[in-house]
Amino acid sequence: MNQIFEKLIPYLDKHMAFNTAIAMLDWDNETLAPEESMEYTAKALGVLSEESFSSLINPEVKEILEELSKEKNLSDLELAIIRKLEKQFQKSEAIPPKEMREYTELTSNSGKAWQKAKRENDFSVFAPYLEKIIAFKKKFAGYGKKDGQKLYDVLLDDYEESFGMEELDLFFDKLKKEILPLLKRIQKAPQVDDSFLHLNYDIEKQKEFNRYLAEYMGFDFNRGVMAESEHPFTTNWHNHDVRITTHYYEDNLASAMLSTIHEGGHALYEMGIRDEYTQTLVGEGASCGMHESQSRFFENIVGRSRAFWEPLYKKLQDMFPKQLGKVSLENFVRALNTVKADFIRTEADELTYCLHIMVRYELEKMMIEEDVDVKELPDLWNQKYKEYLGVEPEEDSKGILQDIHWSMGDIGYFPSYALGNAFSAQIYHQMKQDIKVDELLRTGKISVIRDYLKEHIHQYGASLKPRELLKNLTGEEFNPDYYISYLKERFTKEYQLEE
Amino acid sequence: MNQIFEKLIPYLDKHMAFNTAIAMLDWDNETLAPEESMEYTAKALGVLSEESFSSLINPEVKEILEELSKEKNLSDLELAIIRKLEKQFQKSEAIPPKEMREYTELTSNSGKAWQKAKRENDFSVFAPYLEKIIAFKKKFAGYGKKDGQKLYDVLLDDYEESFGMEELDLFFDKLKKEILPLLKRIQKAPQVDDSFLHLNYDIEKQKEFNRYLAEYMGFDFNRGVMAESEHPFTTNWHNHDVRITTHYYEDNLASAMLSTIHEGGHALYEMGIRDEYTQTLVGEGASCGMHESQSRFFENIVGRSRAFWEPLYKKLQDMFPKQLGKVSLENFVRALNTVKADFIRTEADELTYCLHIMVRYELEKMMIEEDVDVKELPDLWNQKYKEYLGVEPEEDSKGILQDIHWSMGDIGYFPSYALGNAFSAQIYHQMKQDIKVDELLRTGKISVIRDYLKEHIHQYGASLKPRELLKNLTGEEFNPDYYISYLKERFTKEYQLEE
Repeated sequence: MNQIFEKLIPYLDKHMAFNTAIAMLDWDNETLAPEESMEYTAKALGVLSEESFSSLINPEVKEILEELSKEKNLSDLELAIIRKLEKQFQKSEAIPPKEMREYTELTSNSGKAWQKAKRENDFSVFAPYLEKIIAFKKKFAGYGKKDGQKLYDVLLDDYEESFGMEELDLFFDKLKKEILPLLKRIQKAPQVDDSFLHLNYDIEKQKEFNRYLAEYMGFDFNRGVMAESEHPFTTNWHNHDVRITTHYYEDNLASAMLSTIHEGGHALYEMGIRDEYTQTLVGEGASCGMHESQSRFFENIVGRSRAFWEPLYKKLQDMFPKQLGKVSLENFVRALNTVKADFIRTEADELTYCLHIMVRYELEKMMIEEDVDVKELPDLWNQKYKEYLGVEPEEDSKGILQDIHWSMGDIGYFPSYALGNAFSAQIYHQMKQDIKVDELLRTGKISVIRDYLKEHIHQYGASLKPRELLKNLTGEEFNPDYYISYLKERFTKEYQLEE
Repeated sequence: MNQIFEKLIPYLDKHMAFNTAIAMLDWDNETLAPEESMEYTAKALGVLSEESFSSLINPEVKEILEELSKEKNLSDLELAIIRKLEKQFQKSEAIPPKEMREYTELTSNSGKAWQKAKRENDFSVFAPYLEKIIAFKKKFAGYGKKDGQKLYDVLLDDYEESFGMEELDLFFDKLKKEILPLLKRIQKAPQVDDSFLHLNYDIEKQKEFNRYLAEYMGFDFNRGVMAESEHPFTTNWHNHDVRITTHYYEDNLASAMLSTIHEGGHALYEMGIRDEYTQTLVGEGASCGMHESQSRFFENIVGRSRAFWEPLYKKLQDMFPKQLGKVSLENFVRALNTVKADFIRTEADELTYCLHIMVRYELEKMMIEEDVDVKELPDLWNQKYKEYLGVEPEEDSKGILQDIHWSMGDIGYFPSYALGNAFSAQIYHQMKQDIKVDELLRTGKISVIRDYLKEHIHQYGASLKPRELLKNLTGEEFNPDYYISYLKERFTKEYQLEE
């Protein structure tokens, strides 16, 4: 190890230890903690968060970083860690501490205001907070922007480095041009009957099958835990302790299964990161979008395919003979691919999902770049839903108030979900040229697919950027056309439309 | 709050936060973490332990403590916290850091050596480590000792402040004089049939009953969690998040139930500490012994009594009709009170438990005060078991190697278990004069007993010392006679011996 880099280790280790603790406290709170615990545990969590921040962002680390900037004998791993650390420094130094404190207090209060507004279906409760958040985000983006850079591009860069409006506009324009007509054709085609997915499914049996499913796709229970929580999520503190949750509904068989496969995809990413990277700053996914590409790949491209279910469906039928005994594999898979334009993003099918993101992207652009009046947002939201999805939310709690993100200050986050889908399709396109994906799935050899992703994506953690990972694997720059083609091909086939 | 005391708060808060994290990591490791997790999580745990130590033991805190020593306007809570902190400072400053590091490394290795020795039934593997541990403990005790104080008294003081050999010798002499003859009489009396406790008991049903039992004794599931682990234990990070574990055996109904009641007693203590004390240095039990007094009170005095089971036994019978349908309440309770002199401390009955402690106490005295040759310990152990319990372990893994304590450097700990029993009997003696314990139990009003303990013991946390708590409640100094009388009365009755 480089001798100057070595001086960083105690700081990096503390940061890792505090983040381990924070992640475990959060996990525990979502899955197990008794009702009255958090009111007190929050105090410990607050201290740990401050310590996590100041363990890295302090004058001593800054000095070491300056020394390191003159160093030449640094390994790739050391360089990658330094890059990550420098980025964190720049972000945190750009904003005056006083403004940061005001902003932190604001987002803490706006979270409660958003909850109240959603519960009471009253946007006016949340609007003044959103207005202030937008003002802060614009100010902060102003501090961080480079010459000629637009403010929303600065925000987008926070979540998906180097993906700005120019590229996203092109992407969403294509989606609009190609997917909107496809959706209209599907809506006119004969509809799929998926009512059998909503019969009564015993929860204990569902648990048994979902555990089997996780194991089947390669989730290693010697290095992972599966539990339940209100909203499914994945967390981990290193590559040997990765945890996923699911939520079970008695009247919805697909919900838990697709959650398990989705979170399982996130988990395989974290389990696949190299041992030498785990517990370092690059021991995590390359970006939000790249992480989402893995979960979406498993959930949609794999988990809703006929090939995936071919070796599995019999077992599911045997478990629920009354509900599924007479349902053919074909009809089961068609039901998993039902397209239904609706209000709620998190319940959206694969085809319409990106249209939900497009609405949010366009509104965020208006907030940051066009000084839209916050009061107009609910109507704008509803107009766009009407235009793109053909539905209009009856109330703001199912419209403008449905997502938590803006109340937490996350403006610029949503597009990374759409990018994740596009990444997954580009990766899939290459994968099909290298291995026989369908045949492997049909014959239960999903481990070959998992190893392929580990080899080309997972193992690198955040030591390479998403664009580098894509380029190395596919020999091509990011290209959203693969996603559009994939969606068109898949749903033309599922709905037996004419080409 | 005193202005100088206020300067301590950031240090105390960090210490609290790090200890919260450590306790949760330990809990998670014992109850849930996947097999391969700890190898990596240990790194985070190591950092958190160092941070926990240095958050309090540092020059800044020392300076504030010196300022505080001149302060007069300090509340009782502030004074209690300062006392605790000063004691920690004295202990840690007495030992040169280099020796402390050597000792820490030694106990880390000796743990593994002890495990190996026990597994292979070979004391010689552990003996050289024990020899070094004894040497270190004597050296450390020498640093901390006051004029004329004996070394073993310094060690005893670490676990149960101010209880030294003088008092313990008297206590154990009485036990020897009174309990050994009683045990001999019991061994000659007609023996109790407890074979029905060892039939096959479905684990899921046991879990249901044990959860009911915990709730019945007042364990508040809004502020607590119950789980499973190899060895039952209690942990908590504040008074609103207290967790207990149990271990279930299909062929042993009493084991899990008595564990639940025992750990439940520890849990009620922690749940009962005042809100203003929790998350401070006095937000814990008054001492090891006082904590044990609460768990033992519930396990033995309450949990093995006829009165306790009167309102509960029917429910248990209904749950296990095949196994218990024909067993009367009387025979059930007698079976819970079976006396059987045997090798293993953790499985000992109420009567012989303290004899197991006596063996350890006498050997520890020999180690520290009489320079006994470590090689002689196994034989000495076996001789004492023969003398006091009338049994001789066939092998060292069931003899001198059975307990983990010495391998962790805990010499002087065992007597606090015995003191806990004695405390509980003294408290019980007073309680019976204040409330109708048996009648309350018989009529299911156990909450009155719990509130009594909360009022007189639990709420104070570690703000009062055990001797103060006993004196305040009973109007008397510590007096082990109550324990001896209690044992004699109870077992004379259970075994229907003539008075």
